[in-house]
Amino acid sequence: MRVEEFLRERGIGVGDYVRIIKQEGNKEIIYEGIVMPPYELSSGETLVIKLDNGYNIGVALGKIKAIEVLEKAKVKPEVHFKALIEGKPELPNVTIIGTGGTIASRIDYETGAVHPAFTAEELAKAVPEIFEMANITPKLLMNILSEDMRPEYWVKIAHEVAKALNSGDAGVIVAHGTDTMGYTSAALSFMLRDLSKPVVLVGAQRSSDRPSSDAAMNLICSVRMALSDAAEVMVVMHGETGDTYCLAHRGTKVRKMHTSRRDAFRSINDVPIAKVWPDRVEFLRDDYRRRSEGEVWVDDKLDERVALVKVYPGMSPEIIDFLVDRRYRGIVVEGTGLGHTPSGLIPTIERAVQEGVAVCMTSQCLYGRVNLNVYSTGRKLLKAGVIPCEDMLPETAYVKLMWVLGHTDDLNEVRRMMLTSYAGEITPYTRFDTFLR
Amino acid sequence: MRVEEFLRERGIGVGDYVRIIKQEGNKEIIYEGIVMPPYELSSGETLVIKLDNGYNIGVALGKIKAIEVLEKAKVKPEVHFKALIEGKPELPNVTIIGTGGTIASRIDYETGAVHPAFTAEELAKAVPEIFEMANITPKLLMNILSEDMRPEYWVKIAHEVAKALNSGDAGVIVAHGTDTMGYTSAALSFMLRDLSKPVVLVGAQRSSDRPSSDAAMNLICSVRMALSDAAEVMVVMHGETGDTYCLAHRGTKVRKMHTSRRDAFRSINDVPIAKVWPDRVEFLRDDYRRRSEGEVWVDDKLDERVALVKVYPGMSPEIIDFLVDRRYRGIVVEGTGLGHTPSGLIPTIERAVQEGVAVCMTSQCLYGRVNLNVYSTGRKLLKAGVIPCEDMLPETAYVKLMWVLGHTDDLNEVRRMMLTSYAGEITPYTRFDTFLR
Repeated sequence: MRVEEFLRERGIGVGDYVRIIKQEGNKEIIYEGIVMPPYELSSGETLVIKLDNGYNIGVALGKIKAIEVLEKAKVKPEVHFKALIEGKPELPNVTIIGTGGTIASRIDYETGAVHPAFTAEELAKAVPEIFEMANITPKLLMNILSEDMRPEYWVKIAHEVAKALNSGDAGVIVAHGTDTMGYTSAALSFMLRDLSKPVVLVGAQRSSDRPSSDAAMNLICSVRMALSDAAEVMVVMHGETGDTYCLAHRGTKVRKMHTSRRDAFRSINDVPIAKVWPDRVEFLRDDYRRRSEGEVWVDDKLDERVALVKVYPGMSPEIIDFLVDRRYRGIVVEGTGLGHTPSGLIPTIERAVQEGVAVCMTSQCLYGRVNLNVYSTGRKLLKAGVIPCEDMLPETAYVKLMWVLGHTDDLNEVRRMMLTSYAGEITPYTRFDTFLR
Repeated sequence: MRVEEFLRERGIGVGDYVRIIKQEGNKEIIYEGIVMPPYELSSGETLVIKLDNGYNIGVALGKIKAIEVLEKAKVKPEVHFKALIEGKPELPNVTIIGTGGTIASRIDYETGAVHPAFTAEELAKAVPEIFEMANITPKLLMNILSEDMRPEYWVKIAHEVAKALNSGDAGVIVAHGTDTMGYTSAALSFMLRDLSKPVVLVGAQRSSDRPSSDAAMNLICSVRMALSDAAEVMVVMHGETGDTYCLAHRGTKVRKMHTSRRDAFRSINDVPIAKVWPDRVEFLRDDYRRRSEGEVWVDDKLDERVALVKVYPGMSPEIIDFLVDRRYRGIVVEGTGLGHTPSGLIPTIERAVQEGVAVCMTSQCLYGRVNLNVYSTGRKLLKAGVIPCEDMLPETAYVKLMWVLGHTDDLNEVRRMMLTSYAGEITPYTRFDTFLR
């Protein structure tokens, strides 16, 4: 049976507040929430309801043992959604820039399939809450899989963000696939200069084995953060697997640490900026950049001839040589431990530096800080001209080196800029409690 | 003043049990322990004492406010150490194979410098406890920095381990630098077949800013584990930053996750095999391989023409093409998210597979499981012939692919072997509580 028929037979309408008893094996589970509109592209055998916590769940019709209307919808849903998306002068403006990925798409709670759709009405049907927080302007800038994100798109996104902020938005949200969100957040962190308002990247980690998506809560929390006092580029994603709170991570210190969990995004070597609850922001630190007046501008000079290379036992120097021969201008090495490579790579790295290639060292441990002064290999690498990137993430160092090489040819200046923290990418001291959190 | 003079003036001898009051700023810290012998190569201005918990600390002479002998040494230390290292028929035999790195070296608690020295007497002076647990035979097989470890050395170590086990050792310990210990433990896991006794890799994470080393406790716990019932290749390192317990990690599921912390080693997507206290082993799971009779043998066929490649936004396909042109036989890709690459790499990967290169997919998230069935990019990669490595670590997949390619040319057989768990490298189901632990 299709959802429309199921509802019609029982006199239930979209927007009604219902109680459902779901049969799960020999257990009964009770849900209470608002009936959501069925989506035309779904197979129509799943009823979606929005729980009180803002979380949408899908229940297969076959598993519904009983359904009861607790409260009828006060207005017709069409009227409701229309009123919702009308501009309200008392609310701040927030643009949501869609770039592709799960969250920028119609949320089909049933099949897990991704349908590009990004109108205000679509958004209002999926996450009405955000329209009560701000005048939301969705803008589908591109529709690109996260894994296909490229430096040229970072530039495009940066300009779109700046345009929205400089047109009076209180904050801007970038809806982005999760695979490479950390790379894009780092890129925006370096390119958006004199940032005076929040820029929030948000995505959804929905995995196919779950009945529900994290998109709704992530989006609600991202709007909450976009209205906050933090003038930073941030990633807002689930802080726990449950729908309790999100975390706002600094854009240069965040990494996807799990293939599928909702709480996959983690601050590395750093404390998140804030816990974000659907109804409030709880700052976890005091040293964030504050909201201010003034226009943001885009420093979009990037040199794409940069490679990120992880080293390992048995690695041949020919891979580094190849990059030098191919006229790469920068190589970020993901070394072992404190920032080491097999000794056999050192002459190759020396040659690279002599030919003007900027070679930067990070650690494949991810946590901790590169230190080339402790062991002899490190000292040899230093002597060869390697730039030790402190506690910077390899991915952030890769993005930053592109940006730095867009500004200078001089290796001394490259070193100076790589070791200057422009967007919190280097912390002077790593807090003990930031390991594996 | 030098330590010898300092002790002589006060009538204190090596082996005496003392109480020290140390002035630290305007705080006083009290230590009680056994006076350790000064090492000839140290500058001699630091007194090393062994605390009751087996932990050695160095105290600068200038900071010692008071020192008092609580109990005189019962025997002269020379006599004591000699008796200690004498073979005792009632004790089991354990060989400690030295390969280089911090722990296989003389422990200079003062300068942090590393002196190759690996005699029984040296070990007995540093960690007398282990000689009370077993007849310890130290054997310096090589003296190689961890970052210079290479597949040919893995083979050498594997044969040395097998020789010791088949000569009646109860277990074997491999002292190894920490940078690449996870790679070596994976290699030994695949090469040591029909393993019937414990093989323990152990190292020290001592960082120069700490007054003390983790070498002693790690070594004590590694002997404890080598005498246990677990016939596995394991890494034994600190479980917390304090000297409470070590963890025994399965050799294929362990990774150095911090550049410098003592508790840097973590099981990824898996529960450690055991908590190891200096005086007991507390197993954390039941599904480990049990000690048994029978000889271990070494399956040391490796093909070194394998590369590990991390992908990133903006990556050029030319790097993959280069590896194919250079006749690499295997490439382990560290993809994004569930195991994706930029779409632009897919034709190149397709070409690689067509030319007979085994291309295996892992995730740079590290935690979680590759799944190429969820998104279109994944399905295209599957169609191109990529082998999805489940929840295997990228580093383990790299080592395993070398080993697999040492056994077969046939890509179907490579796939079958890569997806067969030979040493716990693939788990059928990832426990929820293994994320960031």
